[in-house]
This record gives sequence, C-alpha cells and structure tokens, in this order.
Amino acid sequence: MLLKGGCPKTALSIKDALEALEGRWKLLILFALSTGDKRFKQLSREVPGITDKTLSKELKSLEANKLIQRDVHDTFPPTVAYSITEHGKSLEKVMDELHYWGLAHRKEIMGT
Amino acid sequence: MLLKGGCPKTALSIKDALEALEGRWKLLILFALSTGDKRFKQLSREVPGITDKTLSKELKSLEANKLIQRDVHDTFPPTVAYSITEHGKSLEKVMDELHYWGLAHRKEIMGT
Repeated sequence: MLLKGGCPKTALSIKDALEALEGRWKLLILFALSTGDKRFKQLSREVPGITDKTLSKELKSLEANKLIQRDVHDTFPPTVAYSITEHGKSLEKVMDELHYWGLAHRKEIMGT
Repeated sequence: MLLKGGCPKTALSIKDALEALEGRWKLLILFALSTGDKRFKQLSREVPGITDKTLSKELKSLEANKLIQRDVHDTFPPTVAYSITEHGKSLEKVMDELHYWGLAHRKEIMGT
C-alpha cells in the first residue's frame, strides 16, 4: 500500500511508530515482558547488556507511551512489577513483519 | 507470534530490521522513490529538511543494504538516478503495519 502511494500522511504515522519504538532497548523490554509480568531486577537480568539507569529511563518512556504498566502490589514491603498493556500487545503484527523482513534482509545481505 | 514466544532469535532479526531502517530519513527516502526513479536533486527537494550531506550518506547506506540502486545513464554528460530495488519494495508489509500501528498509537496517546 505505502509503496504504491507515497502519501505524506502515511509517512507521518510511520514516523510516530518509529519514534515510540526508537532505540534498541524498547523492543527487547517488551519482548521480555511478553512472557509475563516482571520486577525491575528480573528485567535487568533478562535484557542482556542494559544498565539499571537505562532500564529505568526506558521503562518510563514505555509507560508514557502506554505500552507497559507499572503495578504497585500491596505487600509488605510494597512490590512493583511491570506488565505489557493491550496497546503494547497490539505491536504484535509490526513485530512479526519486522521479524520476517529482518530474516529476509539478513539472507539478502549476508547470503546466509 | 512474537508476543507469544520471547525467542532470542526473533529479537535478533527484529534488531537487524531496525538497524537497516534506523533514523528518520531512510524511510522517507524510500517513500520518495516509491513513486519512481529520482535524481539526487529531486530527492533533495522531495525529502523536506534533509541536507545534501545527509542525503548522500543515507543513499550510500540504503545502497549498501540493497534497498535502492544507483543507476548511471549513458547520456552526455552522464546522469545518475536512484531507484528502489525489489528488496526495498519487500518492506511494504513492514511499512503498512507501522503505518496502521502509528495511527492507532496516535489515537491512544493523543486521543485524536
């Protein structure tokens, strides 16, 4: 559809999407949360190479974009866990297509 | 699929895809080329805000990723035009999904 049109409004919504997903951490965090709710320390272990400072910043950005939610549980002491929202889950098709295209791209470029 | 798995290999191919498309210019350039072959100066006019230096750099990167091709025409003097490749066109589904998700995201975030 896109490649038959070149409509500026299409470009705008693609830019919106890429901005919400920018950088390499957000998708990996959403990925880790796709298997279930996680606490900060769990995420920190499951997203290889991320620092606590960056994880904290990215979680705030994902929350602001309504892709994840931060739940405070009434335990003693209170505990916090992060979960993926319905809006976060709505990225599934985007991720699927990126995944398939990424595979095809690797084959095209590296011949593997 | 992705959000049911959390498989590290899926994460890798998504990262490959995002790296090939990184930044805000590449998609806009592919966009401009989707309506037909263009010369450098035409692209420079059709991609608002891009400098000639950045356009030159991005065209090289897109060519290295086999998303566009640079054609030298045997005219006098020789002329150069850029076109989107089949591999570039294979981004169509990714772009469509990003477009739809970007629209939904704007609605979710801005309520518009």
